Amino acid sequence: MKVELIHTNGLEFIDSGIGLCYDKGIYCDVEKRDNRIKKVALKFKHSSVLEFTNFIFDVTASTKVLLEMTRHRLANYACKSSRYTLNKGEVVFEPTGNELVDRKLWNWKQEIEECIGIGISNEITSLMLPQAYQYRWQVQFNARSLQNFLELRRAKSAHFQIREVAEAMFEAVPDEMKYLFEEK
Amino acid sequence: MKVELIHTNGLEFIDSGIGLCYDKGIYCDVEKRDNRIKKVALKFKHSSVLEFTNFIFDVTASTKVLLEMTRHRLANYACKSSRYTLNKGEVVFEPTGNELVDRKLWNWKQEIEECIGIGISNEITSLMLPQAYQYRWQVQFNARSLQNFLELRRAKSAHFQIREVAEAMFEAVPDEMKYLFEEK
Amino acid sequence: MKVELIHTNGLEFIDSGIGLCYDKGIYCDVEKRDNRIKKVALKFKHSSVLEFTNFIFDVTASTKVLLEMTRHRLANYACKSSRYTLNKGEVVFEPTGNELVDRKLWNWKQEIEECIGIGISNEITSLMLPQAYQYRWQVQFNARSLQNFLELRRAKSAHFQIREVAEAMFEAVPDEMKYLFEEK
Amino acid sequence: MKVELIHTNGLEFIDSGIGLCYDKGIYCDVEKRDNRIKKVALKFKHSSVLEFTNFIFDVTASTKVLLEMTRHRLANYACKSSRYTLNKGEVVFEPTGNELVDRKLWNWKQEIEECIGIGISNEITSLMLPQAYQYRWQVQFNARSLQNFLELRRAKSAHFQIREVAEAMFEAVPDEMKYLFEEK
Repeated sequence: MKVELIHTNGLEFIDSGIGLCYDKGIYCDVEKRDNRIKKVALKFKHSSVLEFTNFIFDVTASTKVLLEMTRHRLANYACKSSRYTLNKGEVVFEPTGNELVDRKLWNWKQEIEECIGIGISNEITSLMLPQAYQYRWQVQFNARSLQNFLELRRAKSAHFQIREVAEAMFEAVPDEMKYLFEEK
Repeated sequence: MKVELIHTNGLEFIDSGIGLCYDKGIYCDVEKRDNRIKKVALKFKHSSVLEFTNFIFDVTASTKVLLEMTRHRLANYACKSSRYTLNKGEVVFEPTGNELVDRKLWNWKQEIEECIGIGISNEITSLMLPQAYQYRWQVQFNARSLQNFLELRRAKSAHFQIREVAEAMFEAVPDEMKYLFEEK
Repeated sequence: MKVELIHTNGLEFIDSGIGLCYDKGIYCDVEKRDNRIKKVALKFKHSSVLEFTNFIFDVTASTKVLLEMTRHRLANYACKSSRYTLNKGEVVFEPTGNELVDRKLWNWKQEIEECIGIGISNEITSLMLPQAYQYRWQVQFNARSLQNFLELRRAKSAHFQIREVAEAMFEAVPDEMKYLFEEK
Repeated sequence: MKVELIHTNGLEFIDSGIGLCYDKGIYCDVEKRDNRIKKVALKFKHSSVLEFTNFIFDVTASTKVLLEMTRHRLANYACKSSRYTLNKGEVVFEPTGNELVDRKLWNWKQEIEECIGIGISNEITSLMLPQAYQYRWQVQFNARSLQNFLELRRAKSAHFQIREVAEAMFEAVPDEMKYLFEEK
């Protein structure tokens, strides 16, 4: 599992958006800016201005995580295509935390690579890939949608793999922007 | 694979929507109604009125199809949860069309059921499920979003399993509404 | 101001959606169904299943209300077009609750009709229409999006005209479905 | 009318998104990058990768334009609030191109300012604002949604004011990114 934040446009356009609503302009002073964002967008729940801040992540994680993450529809995705790439590299699985299961998966991996080796098409062999199979994708959330994602997926009730990814995404957010996603 | 249309609200509200735009009211005559829909919503591409017609499908298909279908974000989904249900019934796979692969999957199915049998949690065993694994879900599309889905997924370039599902969805649309989705 | 609910598909597909997630099927008993919806979709905030219930309203209200309502993007709209219809009927304003302002608007109405009368195009005369001008539109919300709309727009802080419309929309919801939108 | 592009994150993340799908990495060579974007995202209509490029505009235009622009729901908005600001500055109208109408509007402007002057609340006086009234807002489109917006709103059939705004938005796009929006 690997998560990297490859882009954010910062807090500037949340600030200018709020400034515009009240015709008060932008803040150059970071503390004043942050206090206004906390008041308007977080406390008063005028959340729509949060949509002006974007985050793009590069995520490497299991199919299980991909399946759950793409259910978040207020985001956009580009995913490594098993159709085009499956027969071009190694088949990699995320560890499941269970030794017996990991051992079985290790055997299956050989069987999948064998099927690829004898030329069965990616269309077919991709149907063998277990949910432990590692995909890589790029995903963009705005800050409002990311709030929702992190709240649901950092929760104890989430699957351990998506919780780990959500935690890593939170960690990747620059420290000075983390307050948007702190527990209330 | 199984697809059932469990709900549609028909064409009535596309008609009333168009009628409202031009202040012309609704049509009781079905032929006039359909001609106006064809002219305004299809030919003139005033597609937004198509959003007033909804379709809810009950779909049983592979994880592969689920992965591709949920990428269509202008739709909504409720999916049978492997977390809650995996240890409560049989593990079923969709056929892959390749005998060797189907045989391997048959063996893996035994191994998965074995792991379930000795009490490994659904959180872990679900990571073993291959993309041939059969999920069941309910999905709602509006007619505009369904147009886009069917155009992309009935195409020759689509994976054969999602093409089959898309074809079955098109077939499930009532005949008198099919013209919304015919090739142009 | 006038609000009419012209369509809803009821609670059936929220129920079947929840039933599917847990592989428990649907409820024929209405009380059991409602209790499960309250527990899963409202208390546990598994809100996405609420998206299977749709409401279509026919709304006649001021431009002010239209401006605020269309900011709700998880909905779809068809609106009487001033471009096509302005010169074809009477120009009607919603009352503002202020006598002086209503009198002024009465005079402006004459002036607008005068401009229409001498053949100035709708493109131009529509620029004279004040926010009290009465539009008519058809709007569809799903139950999740309507929850959000009603929470924000029935609040004391909302503009009195949109509050009235939101109140009328809530009243138009069938009594047996109102619990989806009651104050928590 | 005034349009300013206040932010874009460029083409880099469309490129990395495409690179990821095919496991081919990014291009440092701009020409190769642009050719691949043209091929994959424009010619093959794999449009979803276009969503990784964002544009934020600062727009000053008529209420008419605001009404039409906000109908584009795959965008986000922050708008100067007449409720908070109407009584704090001058009331400004966009020219309509018709002398008679502009003269009438000039008179109405005095009447509105008079009503503001005697202390009638913004809630009421805002109902007097004609569609020529100038709002200011900040709007973010991604490149895919902007394609759709520009195609519809730069067309001859669009209202002249929104066509002017759409044209100015297109002009504000950096030259090296304009090919995303050129006529096909």
